[in-house]
Amino acid sequence: MEAPLINQLGVVKRNIVRADATARERLAAFGSATIHEAMGRVGLMKPTMRPIYAGSHACGTAVTVLLQPGDNWMMHVAAEQIRPGDIVVAAVTAECTDGYFGDLLATSFKARGAQGLVIDGGVRDVKDLTAMGFPVWSKAISAKGTIKATLGSVNIPVVCAGALVNPGDVVLADDDGVVVVPAAIASQVADAAKKREDLETDKRVKLAAGVLGLDMYQMREPLAKAGLRYID
Amino acid sequence: MEAPLINQLGVVKRNIVRADATARERLAAFGSATIHEAMGRVGLMKPTMRPIYAGSHACGTAVTVLLQPGDNWMMHVAAEQIRPGDIVVAAVTAECTDGYFGDLLATSFKARGAQGLVIDGGVRDVKDLTAMGFPVWSKAISAKGTIKATLGSVNIPVVCAGALVNPGDVVLADDDGVVVVPAAIASQVADAAKKREDLETDKRVKLAAGVLGLDMYQMREPLAKAGLRYID
Amino acid sequence: MEAPLINQLGVVKRNIVRADATARERLAAFGSATIHEAMGRVGLMKPTMRPIYAGSHACGTAVTVLLQPGDNWMMHVAAEQIRPGDIVVAAVTAECTDGYFGDLLATSFKARGAQGLVIDGGVRDVKDLTAMGFPVWSKAISAKGTIKATLGSVNIPVVCAGALVNPGDVVLADDDGVVVVPAAIASQVADAAKKREDLETDKRVKLAAGVLGLDMYQMREPLAKAGLRYID
Amino acid sequence: MEAPLINQLGVVKRNIVRADATARERLAAFGSATIHEAMGRVGLMKPTMRPIYAGSHACGTAVTVLLQPGDNWMMHVAAEQIRPGDIVVAAVTAECTDGYFGDLLATSFKARGAQGLVIDGGVRDVKDLTAMGFPVWSKAISAKGTIKATLGSVNIPVVCAGALVNPGDVVLADDDGVVVVPAAIASQVADAAKKREDLETDKRVKLAAGVLGLDMYQMREPLAKAGLRYID
Amino acid sequence: MEAPLINQLGVVKRNIVRADATARERLAAFGSATIHEAMGRVGLMKPTMRPIYAGSHACGTAVTVLLQPGDNWMMHVAAEQIRPGDIVVAAVTAECTDGYFGDLLATSFKARGAQGLVIDGGVRDVKDLTAMGFPVWSKAISAKGTIKATLGSVNIPVVCAGALVNPGDVVLADDDGVVVVPAAIASQVADAAKKREDLETDKRVKLAAGVLGLDMYQMREPLAKAGLRYID
Amino acid sequence: MEAPLINQLGVVKRNIVRADATARERLAAFGSATIHEAMGRVGLMKPTMRPIYAGSHACGTAVTVLLQPGDNWMMHVAAEQIRPGDIVVAAVTAECTDGYFGDLLATSFKARGAQGLVIDGGVRDVKDLTAMGFPVWSKAISAKGTIKATLGSVNIPVVCAGALVNPGDVVLADDDGVVVVPAAIASQVADAAKKREDLETDKRVKLAAGVLGLDMYQMREPLAKAGLRYID
Repeated sequence: MEAPLINQLGVVKRNIVRADATARERLAAFGSATIHEAMGRVGLMKPTMRPIYAGSHACGTAVTVLLQPGDNWMMHVAAEQIRPGDIVVAAVTAECTDGYFGDLLATSFKARGAQGLVIDGGVRDVKDLTAMGFPVWSKAISAKGTIKATLGSVNIPVVCAGALVNPGDVVLADDDGVVVVPAAIASQVADAAKKREDLETDKRVKLAAGVLGLDMYQMREPLAKAGLRYID
Repeated sequence: MEAPLINQLGVVKRNIVRADATARERLAAFGSATIHEAMGRVGLMKPTMRPIYAGSHACGTAVTVLLQPGDNWMMHVAAEQIRPGDIVVAAVTAECTDGYFGDLLATSFKARGAQGLVIDGGVRDVKDLTAMGFPVWSKAISAKGTIKATLGSVNIPVVCAGALVNPGDVVLADDDGVVVVPAAIASQVADAAKKREDLETDKRVKLAAGVLGLDMYQMREPLAKAGLRYID
Repeated sequence: MEAPLINQLGVVKRNIVRADATARERLAAFGSATIHEAMGRVGLMKPTMRPIYAGSHACGTAVTVLLQPGDNWMMHVAAEQIRPGDIVVAAVTAECTDGYFGDLLATSFKARGAQGLVIDGGVRDVKDLTAMGFPVWSKAISAKGTIKATLGSVNIPVVCAGALVNPGDVVLADDDGVVVVPAAIASQVADAAKKREDLETDKRVKLAAGVLGLDMYQMREPLAKAGLRYID
Repeated sequence: MEAPLINQLGVVKRNIVRADATARERLAAFGSATIHEAMGRVGLMKPTMRPIYAGSHACGTAVTVLLQPGDNWMMHVAAEQIRPGDIVVAAVTAECTDGYFGDLLATSFKARGAQGLVIDGGVRDVKDLTAMGFPVWSKAISAKGTIKATLGSVNIPVVCAGALVNPGDVVLADDDGVVVVPAAIASQVADAAKKREDLETDKRVKLAAGVLGLDMYQMREPLAKAGLRYID
Repeated sequence: MEAPLINQLGVVKRNIVRADATARERLAAFGSATIHEAMGRVGLMKPTMRPIYAGSHACGTAVTVLLQPGDNWMMHVAAEQIRPGDIVVAAVTAECTDGYFGDLLATSFKARGAQGLVIDGGVRDVKDLTAMGFPVWSKAISAKGTIKATLGSVNIPVVCAGALVNPGDVVLADDDGVVVVPAAIASQVADAAKKREDLETDKRVKLAAGVLGLDMYQMREPLAKAGLRYID
Repeated sequence: MEAPLINQLGVVKRNIVRADATARERLAAFGSATIHEAMGRVGLMKPTMRPIYAGSHACGTAVTVLLQPGDNWMMHVAAEQIRPGDIVVAAVTAECTDGYFGDLLATSFKARGAQGLVIDGGVRDVKDLTAMGFPVWSKAISAKGTIKATLGSVNIPVVCAGALVNPGDVVLADDDGVVVVPAAIASQVADAAKKREDLETDKRVKLAAGVLGLDMYQMREPLAKAGLRYID
């Protein structure tokens, strides 16, 4: 039997199956919270992942990278695999907050058509990245640079901030966090997200008019049944 | 003997004694740091509580909520208890960073007259909340949604981010943090805050002119007495 | 033998040797990431140190302060030692997130010519400090005030956020973090930073044009030698 | 109106109403998990509170202390208020991991009849405390000593590790954590805990014999109703 | 296209392919550090996962569980799927330290033949579990109980403490941490671990005799080449 | 001017001035808390540094190591510099919890006469190290191995867990933490520690007999003067 690619070091997969472009574009119209709900309340990275500037939004097909602590060699290998519409998702084999990515790599990634970067590590040059409009979600900001000495991998399945990401999956990130949509269900999830958002518009109007969720969602009976009691 | 309300689950108290409205309005003019000092340096929540956007400021009488991990059912129950001038303060029975609150609930809370939300958990839709100007102080931002299955309580005393909050207390929050003023002393605290702030204006002018705190506060003698020595 | 000054309590050193002013001014033109690289990838404080507003930048010669937990008495003693072009670096003898510094002290520090504050503790009045344009790097924002009761020291060597800072060292801080340049090598580091930045401009142009780092840095051969294999 | 005692500094309350001694003794027979369930799943301190040695167990009526960061003066004031059967519960006005308590204070507390200490801070001399059999629950172990300079309070209501503790409440601590039982309901809680434990013995026997919880708790139907589906 | 099982809620897979029993037994003879090295330095859970008692050691084929925050309903569903030689691996859809597991469930799991539990959450009754010799690796110990209200899943791929675990994988846990060996390569990994350990015995003897690693591993030349310089 | 050694990479200093052996032996008789007090309440590492087994105690002259994240090459270089009576103190240039040290290195260090290891990183093989009686203080336990690819340094001044350590300083570690005594004052600190401990024996007897610290330390008057008030 052959070893699964997950976690393997020293491998670059060139031909990956990217999620359908139309599905990706449709998903790009929603927020991470809506998509996560549309998927059945799963697929989120940990809330430690934060954008480097407010108002960040990116949606792309994942080019994955597995890095070693304090080493960003594989980022350069990954650059070559980026196609327009991709987003790079970088995991690290250990907890490490070093600044694996800065304005030079961002210039390169952008030139290749990358929509942004999601990294379970640190990032630097955040002022330049903000000025460039290149969004990054990371768990730290750190001026600490890295070396180029040890092999990791590109385009293998990785666990990034608690979520499994397969190369080609749709990854959407905004101010609320980062959500991963498996390529196989991108289209269905877009449908479900659309349905959910349509319903929300109507609800928002009612709530703004002062209607209570208690009534709109018909919660009074189940609450009473669960034993809620009102006292004065 | 009867059980105290603290921590009780499944209870909604309808009639709470809100702090005097004039006292609340007077307190709204100060910062959290000034009020905390005016109270004798107590009453603050932990510094893990952060506003979702810079420049946030809110002051209201507390409607309290006790939530279960991953469950925001009680938020809807709380909405009905909100009166104009209130601020909602939500505690959770366990550490949980899920996004208990988003733009729909904010629309409802705002329609009821809420000044903002303080929650020892997570919040989502922060871009929308920022656009709405609905301030939230939380310990996390997370797209992760919650369910509506288990009872908590509304308007019982709760411990939120290390501070005891009784329903009706004045809660003031700004960029520096969140401070709780017991309803019974809201007026005295406003007096003390006013006195403190008047003194500070004068001090600020002197310090800006180059006068040293060492001289202005007459610290040189006590410092020498405590043993401070200058070397070259 | 005499005890070293490091960690000593109750001492204020008046005459410190500040790094050369020209070197300081030259260093001020670079970012923390560049300087850290120019020093051989050392000299950074921990990434827990964050600026209170985006776009912060400061570079000065260090006036150091050693504080006790919950006590900011020494900040007033430090104010007198500040000269134009200095930056105050405050360490605390224990982990404590209290707000040791606010707008009054900032007014005083600014009047003395301070460029900013770096503190391994908390800060408050961040809205006022932002309006004043007085940059602070800290590990927390907290409205919690401090007392003035226990002696620390001023202008002794301190360990702040994991970095040793000697009084007179150049400390540069920006959105990426805080870096410490020993006074003795300030000039050489400025040279090395200049050289590095010149090289980067050229690289940026190439990368923006689509040249890959793999080719620009001639990485293909070492990667192959290290065993990287491409699969389809 | 008078200020509530919560959070007040500089106060020692001498006469406190301790929970009924019989109730306390009955509660001492249970574990923290059982008591927390018997109270309706509330009353626990945060899981950051850990015993200094495995197998620790203590149950007493609370003598509360409010400490300032880095200052243990009030511990000596508290010692005088201890009566046999008490447990000391210490909160700190700020996050601080200093070692507020060591073998000298433990000797004093033990001589006064204390059952142990619960402190939302640090402790030291843990080897000696272990040898003495004096149990302590804390959030840190630290050799760092404290000063005796600032007033806190004794026997006022405090928030310790997220739980409100009123002087006289029963506090039970073991390897699983620390639970607070309000004095007014100590007896009822002991009844409920007894009932719960009786039921558990029976369940344990069945489960050990291989009976599944699915059948014993009759979960199969509600699980199917909730939509659980089995696949092969 | 069908949705992948990863993350799906409300599913129990009954027939899973367990790693070869002989391979599992061979792996059980090694430590987690050796196996992780034998796999090419991958496959480890985060170091936040700690055993509840020193000297814990377990090796089994994974029965996986996906839990909701504060809800352990699925643990009972998982019990039925356990076969002798299995180890239960529980992930939670959100960060939550509640005590999902205690002595009753342990009694049931043990009766079914489980070797232990690995849970990215909290555990309670640790004194009883220690007495029973039922090892648990968790990120927290907490007396806080959970409810049984929301569906999760059993025997789907889960991400637990940063590692992907497929049902049937070999999971080995000891004092150093938890490592996951994909079922497909269990046998090869056992071979590699054996080889590694054989080499280590020899090295240990030499090092104990005072031979330096510098010489034994022939590091002097590469160190010199990398630029290491000795000064006096 | 020459660059200071602090932080320099790629350097091994062979001849270091070790603290006086008699002073080291005298210091070994005290606990970390006593020594820290004797030094004027300074010199401690952060309380995140914990021993791998209870009852650990070590005192030695420091051989310092500066490591790169995920790389333990310098540990082997350090081994050669160890003399009987030394303790190895390892800092890392970034936050990284990898297991830099295990039973093979411990065997080598022990053969060279090392008293133990203090590392601001991770350690593995803790069961073996415990059996060998080789004490280690670390911030993490992790099975994750490291590589040997990048230069750090040996016997330069390092900042380890917040404390500056110069090669040759006396480092004492026990269950309460790790304290650093500069070589120049080792003898004076031993004197002060002796004096302090003599006083404590007497106090312990009094406190055990029921004398209150309030009386023994004559605190009643200063407390009253500070404003403490007793209420009933």
